[in-house]
Amino acid sequence: MVTFTDIKKAQELIAPYIKRTPIVQSSLLNKWLGHEIFFKAECLQTTGAFKLRGATHFLAQLKKQDILPKHIVANSSGNHAQAVAYAGALFNIPVTIYSAQNISAIKAAATESYGATLKRFDTRLEADAEVAIAGQQPDTVWIPPFNHPYIIAGQGTASFEALKQTEDIDMIAAPCGGGGLLSGTIIAAKAINKHIQVVGAEPLAANDAARSLREGRIVTLEHAPITLADGAATPSIGEHTFEVLKTIDAFYEVDELDIIYWTQWLHHLLKLHIEPTCAMTMQAVVNWLSTQTTKKRVMVLASGGNISQLSMQKIWHQDRLSNIPSLHLAKHI
Amino acid sequence: MVTFTDIKKAQELIAPYIKRTPIVQSSLLNKWLGHEIFFKAECLQTTGAFKLRGATHFLAQLKKQDILPKHIVANSSGNHAQAVAYAGALFNIPVTIYSAQNISAIKAAATESYGATLKRFDTRLEADAEVAIAGQQPDTVWIPPFNHPYIIAGQGTASFEALKQTEDIDMIAAPCGGGGLLSGTIIAAKAINKHIQVVGAEPLAANDAARSLREGRIVTLEHAPITLADGAATPSIGEHTFEVLKTIDAFYEVDELDIIYWTQWLHHLLKLHIEPTCAMTMQAVVNWLSTQTTKKRVMVLASGGNISQLSMQKIWHQDRLSNIPSLHLAKHI
Repeated sequence: MVTFTDIKKAQELIAPYIKRTPIVQSSLLNKWLGHEIFFKAECLQTTGAFKLRGATHFLAQLKKQDILPKHIVANSSGNHAQAVAYAGALFNIPVTIYSAQNISAIKAAATESYGATLKRFDTRLEADAEVAIAGQQPDTVWIPPFNHPYIIAGQGTASFEALKQTEDIDMIAAPCGGGGLLSGTIIAAKAINKHIQVVGAEPLAANDAARSLREGRIVTLEHAPITLADGAATPSIGEHTFEVLKTIDAFYEVDELDIIYWTQWLHHLLKLHIEPTCAMTMQAVVNWLSTQTTKKRVMVLASGGNISQLSMQKIWHQDRLSNIPSLHLAKHI
Repeated sequence: MVTFTDIKKAQELIAPYIKRTPIVQSSLLNKWLGHEIFFKAECLQTTGAFKLRGATHFLAQLKKQDILPKHIVANSSGNHAQAVAYAGALFNIPVTIYSAQNISAIKAAATESYGATLKRFDTRLEADAEVAIAGQQPDTVWIPPFNHPYIIAGQGTASFEALKQTEDIDMIAAPCGGGGLLSGTIIAAKAINKHIQVVGAEPLAANDAARSLREGRIVTLEHAPITLADGAATPSIGEHTFEVLKTIDAFYEVDELDIIYWTQWLHHLLKLHIEPTCAMTMQAVVNWLSTQTTKKRVMVLASGGNISQLSMQKIWHQDRLSNIPSLHLAKHI
């Protein structure tokens, strides 16, 4: 089990490689909601997402033990691919990324620009199978996207850093894909102050974590989900993350219209290019705030900012900015 | 004529009211262009644009002279409206904004949320005529959008600040609407180092400044222009700004497709919600860089981040991210 000490040590280890991203606020949003909302702008992290924290921590741990490999492999079509490509370059180790054929042109370009080799497979399942084989080759290490103590501790540094940057936070919220960021957040927040509430958000269309929490066992999605929150489209959480997620205070499933609504509004209010996966978290925040009776200070992990043109086209197709944010948007589920 | 001393004094006067916005970079963009590009992120300024600098400077000057009015009026359907509304609230003075009927719902909401009264008129010309009358009422001051020494000195602080934050800049680029930001930039940059080149950008569809510079007289657009760079759709520059703009080193007219291209790319690379008006400036940067023979350090004024849903829909309708930025995109005009 990952501990708070692991996260604090991870923070020291990765400090040379990552940015201390800023905390941003919108005075209008605070006024409209009647609470104080802080955003940890990890979309401004190098490679555009918090994922670089886990990837650099993984390699820094191997370096510390003097067991750095000669070759790194990873499976991802998203932010983890870019993070591992960039981290590999930092440590001067060649990287091969195993991705599905439908990786967006822009994510492929970024991954290759960081110096990685990109192998494309017909399906995600095929890429996952191939990376498992490649990871067993001599001198090769597979950096998994979330289900590993090094990754969880690395991602947990985002919340640890955020809670050091802003005092007296009552609640911290993060999106849930494989659960690396969210479980790291639970460990960091509860160790800093056990009264800090931790809230998670997941697309209703990819609600494997919510179902896993309800059923008390890891549920895997039967089909590839269709959601704009592609960073949270992971088919299932892992054993490591599930154990931590079980202790979460509240968890909300968010529908696609609410994901679009909050992406438009957060772009406008924060002037940040924030992923739908992160914007989704605001609906969970509003749901939670509507159950509160006093003014709260909330931290939101603005996890990333890599969005394809097709997603942007879908997000901005209709006007959601005519309806101002308020707690009346809360959904009691 | 506004001097560098005016800009330095303005910086001191407005310091309590404005944010020192960060300088951001994209390592991929630098790699692809072969030069170092720095962005002064004024889209992260309070109210979402550099315009707050001029508006607070105007009022701070009146306060210094103990002639603050009891009522402020201003004409704008854009960033100046929000800036004056916010600045008025800072100085506890009621504000009335005169705008055209077609002001976007989101800009109207922000203006009113800052406490201003919004008066809507059928056309921009009608609003401009009415504000001129209102500005002559007792105890009332009209804060013009650009053509005033206080405004030029205030906007010039953005470039002054940027050039203090980053050393050895070879060229600084800014968009041109009424010319307040660009003329303030010329004054600040040339005083800091006369070798710094200053480059301006304007939409080809609203090229009154380019025509004014070519013809040696202030040219006014005959029709309301259709351009995504709405912050640069001003019908004409003013006498104050024209005098300074005459000394600019290079000035480029940018077509709508290039405005869309750079808006998509800057959103993606910088993770900032950057206005088309600002993104437009990147085409001028690429045009200028293609004429250079050595590696340059360039500062771009990322002027604002207020974009309507309709503009976002138009910007993201087609994929411009499949074509990676390069100097081959330069247009020699």
